[in-house]
Amino acid sequence: MKILLSMVALALTLSAADDLKKPLVIAEQGSFFVGGETKAVPAPPPTPGRGPGAPGDITVNQMYVQYQIPVNANPHVPVVMVHGCCLSSKTWETTPDGRMGWNEYFVRKNRPTYLADQVSRARSGFDGSKISAVKAGTLPPSELPNLLTASHQTAWSVFRFGPTFGKAFPDEQFPVEAVDELYKQMIPDLNALLPNPNPTWTNMAALAVKLKGAILIGHSESGFFPEQAAMIDPSGVKGIISIEMPCVTNLTSAQLSTLAKIPTLVMFGDHLDGVQGGFNNWPTSFASCNTFVKQVNDAGGDAQMMSLPAMGIKGNSHMLMQDKNNLQLADLILGWIDGHVESKKGVRANAKK
Amino acid sequence: MKILLSMVALALTLSAADDLKKPLVIAEQGSFFVGGETKAVPAPPPTPGRGPGAPGDITVNQMYVQYQIPVNANPHVPVVMVHGCCLSSKTWETTPDGRMGWNEYFVRKNRPTYLADQVSRARSGFDGSKISAVKAGTLPPSELPNLLTASHQTAWSVFRFGPTFGKAFPDEQFPVEAVDELYKQMIPDLNALLPNPNPTWTNMAALAVKLKGAILIGHSESGFFPEQAAMIDPSGVKGIISIEMPCVTNLTSAQLSTLAKIPTLVMFGDHLDGVQGGFNNWPTSFASCNTFVKQVNDAGGDAQMMSLPAMGIKGNSHMLMQDKNNLQLADLILGWIDGHVESKKGVRANAKK
Repeated sequence: MKILLSMVALALTLSAADDLKKPLVIAEQGSFFVGGETKAVPAPPPTPGRGPGAPGDITVNQMYVQYQIPVNANPHVPVVMVHGCCLSSKTWETTPDGRMGWNEYFVRKNRPTYLADQVSRARSGFDGSKISAVKAGTLPPSELPNLLTASHQTAWSVFRFGPTFGKAFPDEQFPVEAVDELYKQMIPDLNALLPNPNPTWTNMAALAVKLKGAILIGHSESGFFPEQAAMIDPSGVKGIISIEMPCVTNLTSAQLSTLAKIPTLVMFGDHLDGVQGGFNNWPTSFASCNTFVKQVNDAGGDAQMMSLPAMGIKGNSHMLMQDKNNLQLADLILGWIDGHVESKKGVRANAKK
Repeated sequence: MKILLSMVALALTLSAADDLKKPLVIAEQGSFFVGGETKAVPAPPPTPGRGPGAPGDITVNQMYVQYQIPVNANPHVPVVMVHGCCLSSKTWETTPDGRMGWNEYFVRKNRPTYLADQVSRARSGFDGSKISAVKAGTLPPSELPNLLTASHQTAWSVFRFGPTFGKAFPDEQFPVEAVDELYKQMIPDLNALLPNPNPTWTNMAALAVKLKGAILIGHSESGFFPEQAAMIDPSGVKGIISIEMPCVTNLTSAQLSTLAKIPTLVMFGDHLDGVQGGFNNWPTSFASCNTFVKQVNDAGGDAQMMSLPAMGIKGNSHMLMQDKNNLQLADLILGWIDGHVESKKGVRANAKK
């Protein structure tokens, strides 16, 4: 009987794998920007052959969003994915070892899927005027942004691939044989240039409104961005998924009351205390999020901490959306969405009346 | 009879428009990097809560590539699109006024389509070490890159939307009512950081080899990049499409001989001498490309200058892939590919023996 069940499970797995190789059928795809403001800038330095420049206007703080809507999207709630520090939306695409990422998997599971490059990163661009002003001598070098670039060594440690650089945990789920491809995804982080509140938060909230309701997913640096977006404008935020970050635990009761109206999932991987040296605050981050989850629930909310090792799922890194079991984790998230967001849509729609 | 023909033409147009609304069926999609080297960097400044940083390695000069392969791709040659200055691959996606861009149109025409973010731009990232060194005081501000940011005013002039800022040409094809959405696409250009030869050229050549043959499309700043890539390694470059840029006219006979083996299309839009003030070198660029086309043909090549106004197609801007008639222009390119690249595949394959 056990063997039979195993064979059935294997057959189902193979059949699911076959499904993923079927053509992907898209009802609509494209890209657009959310937010953005006009800013006056001084004349650029003279360019050879073009003569002196003139002062003008540039657009800053806009957020680039790329999306795909599958043919069977209705009635699923759109999902917005936002990457972490020193990364771009590449995070969610093909994994370093060439497997399917969460973006395509979610589309194949009939979810309208939106990838946002954080403001000041990748295709969203950044406000370069301070760098130009320092070069022109009108600002001192100290005014340059503190540019974050994670080295290979830092990534290995912070992303928890193993106890020391180059050595993987025995049960490590990240495809470390392809780590060089992850290093290519790591790009300078200019968030130090951003005003407060971070325009990415405002733009995420505005995107959720534009989509007439969306589930916001953040990771690492952006892990708490869905909450920040909801505290700016909760009206479009139908669900929050926060992956591996420090949580804010001193929110006001008004803020907690806002968040308590939005189903929230927090997810953490394995080996939180397994890395030697360098940044090693994962146990602290995990503890802060357990506190946060309790605070939201105490305020009447529906928040859940999904600690993967506590569920028997071992070896997941910080880059768990790229880990070898990434689609299994995606299924956990999809199941949570079905049970905590989509099953309650009617209830919530009625509750508004 | 004329009315009947008009009605047939209208019916065909409507039927084509309906086709574009059909679901898009993708055999495979994803993203990856081409190129990239490891570079040692000094320790970052100490971070509060993390203590002093350690020196490490980063990856630089990698090129991010995003692709879609349609189900009926065989036997079409893949097409690689590379954007221009102060822009990203967004260039080729949904237009500022929300219409279909060339990337999706080419996929719908059964072409495997690859969008590359230039090295030092967008999801390819950039080498931030000079900026960090100036902030740390180990390099003087003069060592900062000359960061290019096109202002709204510069874009209006250089992209030839009209004779003066805010005023459009009467027959302007760019959707100027949505120009604010173009301004959001314009992001700082850090190409001044790049070594020589530009790694984007090398990576484009390597990508063409990886794809076992590709047609390279460049625009504006990257307009001559397909030629530069082919001069580094022509083995994968099956066709060159260069849109609106200055051409190099002092190539060696060996270089011209290399390029003469690759079918080449050069395309220019309208109003080249219609813009007042600012950058106004379009007539010079056009003349240089006419010279280049003649040089390639004199060397036995198959190069063609497609001047749109000379063909009776009026009002196209520099951002012609976003103009209102952008799909008509895409059809011209597809027709050129069919006639000059794909029809000769067999001949060229045999010629190699």
